[in-house]
Amino acid sequence: MTRPVRFVELARDSETRARAGRIYTPHGTVETPAFMPVGTGGSVKSMLPEEVAELGAEVVLGNTLHLFLRPGHALIERLGGLHRFMNWPRTLLTDSGGYQVFSLAEKRQISEEGVEFQSPYDGSRHFLSPELAVSIQEALGSDIAMAFDECPPAGASRSDHARAMHRTTRWLDRCIEARRRPERTSLFGIVQGGPFLDLRSDHARAVLERDLDGYAIGGVAVGEEKHEMVAVVEHVAPALPEDKPRYLMGVGHPEDLALAVAAGVDMFDCVVPTRNARNGRVFVEDGVLVIKHARYREDPSPLDPSCACPVCRRYSRAYLRHLFVTNEITGHRLLTYHNLWYFQALMRAFRHEIRSGTFGRRVDWAQARLGGSLSSPSDESADS
Amino acid sequence: MTRPVRFVELARDSETRARAGRIYTPHGTVETPAFMPVGTGGSVKSMLPEEVAELGAEVVLGNTLHLFLRPGHALIERLGGLHRFMNWPRTLLTDSGGYQVFSLAEKRQISEEGVEFQSPYDGSRHFLSPELAVSIQEALGSDIAMAFDECPPAGASRSDHARAMHRTTRWLDRCIEARRRPERTSLFGIVQGGPFLDLRSDHARAVLERDLDGYAIGGVAVGEEKHEMVAVVEHVAPALPEDKPRYLMGVGHPEDLALAVAAGVDMFDCVVPTRNARNGRVFVEDGVLVIKHARYREDPSPLDPSCACPVCRRYSRAYLRHLFVTNEITGHRLLTYHNLWYFQALMRAFRHEIRSGTFGRRVDWAQARLGGSLSSPSDESADS
Repeated sequence: MTRPVRFVELARDSETRARAGRIYTPHGTVETPAFMPVGTGGSVKSMLPEEVAELGAEVVLGNTLHLFLRPGHALIERLGGLHRFMNWPRTLLTDSGGYQVFSLAEKRQISEEGVEFQSPYDGSRHFLSPELAVSIQEALGSDIAMAFDECPPAGASRSDHARAMHRTTRWLDRCIEARRRPERTSLFGIVQGGPFLDLRSDHARAVLERDLDGYAIGGVAVGEEKHEMVAVVEHVAPALPEDKPRYLMGVGHPEDLALAVAAGVDMFDCVVPTRNARNGRVFVEDGVLVIKHARYREDPSPLDPSCACPVCRRYSRAYLRHLFVTNEITGHRLLTYHNLWYFQALMRAFRHEIRSGTFGRRVDWAQARLGGSLSSPSDESADS
Repeated sequence: MTRPVRFVELARDSETRARAGRIYTPHGTVETPAFMPVGTGGSVKSMLPEEVAELGAEVVLGNTLHLFLRPGHALIERLGGLHRFMNWPRTLLTDSGGYQVFSLAEKRQISEEGVEFQSPYDGSRHFLSPELAVSIQEALGSDIAMAFDECPPAGASRSDHARAMHRTTRWLDRCIEARRRPERTSLFGIVQGGPFLDLRSDHARAVLERDLDGYAIGGVAVGEEKHEMVAVVEHVAPALPEDKPRYLMGVGHPEDLALAVAAGVDMFDCVVPTRNARNGRVFVEDGVLVIKHARYREDPSPLDPSCACPVCRRYSRAYLRHLFVTNEITGHRLLTYHNLWYFQALMRAFRHEIRSGTFGRRVDWAQARLGGSLSSPSDESADS
């Protein structure tokens, strides 16, 4: 069988475990480390796909749970798949819906068979199982499907994590069994285990026994302390195979990305740039700028004087503040564009630094930023 | 004195009074008949200026009342004027705030001196006068300023209209007196008089006695019957000078535009394309398509199979319906883009038909459409 997704490592940092590489998929190549903008329900909020491509993003994440509920995967399949539906010709990764069922849906009933839940939109009852999660993602035509996992909340006990992790392994086998188009849609496994490093090791071993196209670290950015997240990533990433992409789910802030890359992670997704933009929080060279502040009322300078994006070349903070406080759609667009540009530019910088052997400095940069006041990300894998 | 705005007639239709021309302004040329997208508070809602230009629009309207209240004209002036603030390098026309004070603001007190009113945003009290309306528009750096007028509501009595019209003339003289930058910002007068054609004639004579850069028909599209609006336009437009632009304010639907062009009108503004887009009402070749209808749920065809716009080339009705029903910003963008494209394409068609002597058919087209169920536009000069 030809695998739909293949990873090649191109360069390795000398001081850290950071690496630069390339993922080949049925819809193009993805330079890594890569940040995936979140295209929740078939669009990256406020953006057009040509703009997402212009930013340099080569892969977008779609949320299976959202698309399953609205407009339905069968409809999207009949219309030619998600790539065509949303006019995104490049690589698509879909989550399994697992995390979102646990974080978004109401009145969940979890059994060995799967999860029964209530739609947050209309209260209707639905059932999601490993088999259905794979079937939905294959119907969408995803290039990279994620296994259906159980993700306990932050603060869950060790025994809860152990139970969920064993169930995730059994569900992984059902996901593998359920695949009908393995030549077109790849499958990544997810390592769970919460903050317990020995559980993480156990689960990594179990997941790695299954021969998959890539491996992900799940169950982080769910409200735990940032140092716990970093410890998990630094523990798990090196245990994942070198010849497959390593994906850290739902992370995160710029400094988190730097530390995870230093641990050997290749792929990221997070709503941090898009959701923060809509809340008027803008990523700039030295941190976060809150555009609504009165001090920007008459500020003629760009969001970030060191940024080369079209928003910074064309608009003042004063104008962007005005659009934000008057709640203009155009303001959401411009702030989203800038934030996504920042994240893509950051990944380009990481890749360059890895190739040129200067990535080590990024770890200091990240730790200096973490010394600041940024709080932990939590529950940030769907952009709504 | 060199006038900032100059009009040249380029072609005239043989069967109607329709004409094609060109307006020269300090920020470029405007081919007429022209439709101005409404850039309410410094942005055409959901659009970027480069997209507005890409559609073919050569002039955008800004709302003086909105910009006066937020962020303030003095701030915009200090930042280099409205063109730079909103990154729109082409022609800008601003309304005077008169109509909007009467239609939007609360607790108005009208006196000979001006209008005291309450901000719809925060309840603060403000005062607008002819002098201030001109001063605001000059501070914004508008290419075309409109005189401050009193606009009675539909259903006002003949004597109310007569009184308001005489006051509008006195206010016009105060506007003329108040000009400080006549070489940069032109001033258009506005003919009032409601549905009373003899009042309209009287007021047209009075306004034309003042030597202005262009003349507008105001006080229509305020809730009156469509046939009354058409009667007023057909009565007033031919009375306006041939060597100046004629502008019909706040109109309208495609068929209204055709009939007004046939009467000799050169310029239009209306929120119909933008506001309707955000309400899911899409202009297509044979009328209006309501995108939320269930019949489009799985429809793979473009909004309008005869349309060449990027939205119609790239997206299905099914996808656009999905974005609309899930209230995605991207959906508002795409529907707005298509509707504005429709209006610009319509004006291009009008100009072509006038030059090629085939515009007469447009009157039949418009009357056939008016036979349909479209209701009167009313209160549509601010896009909120």
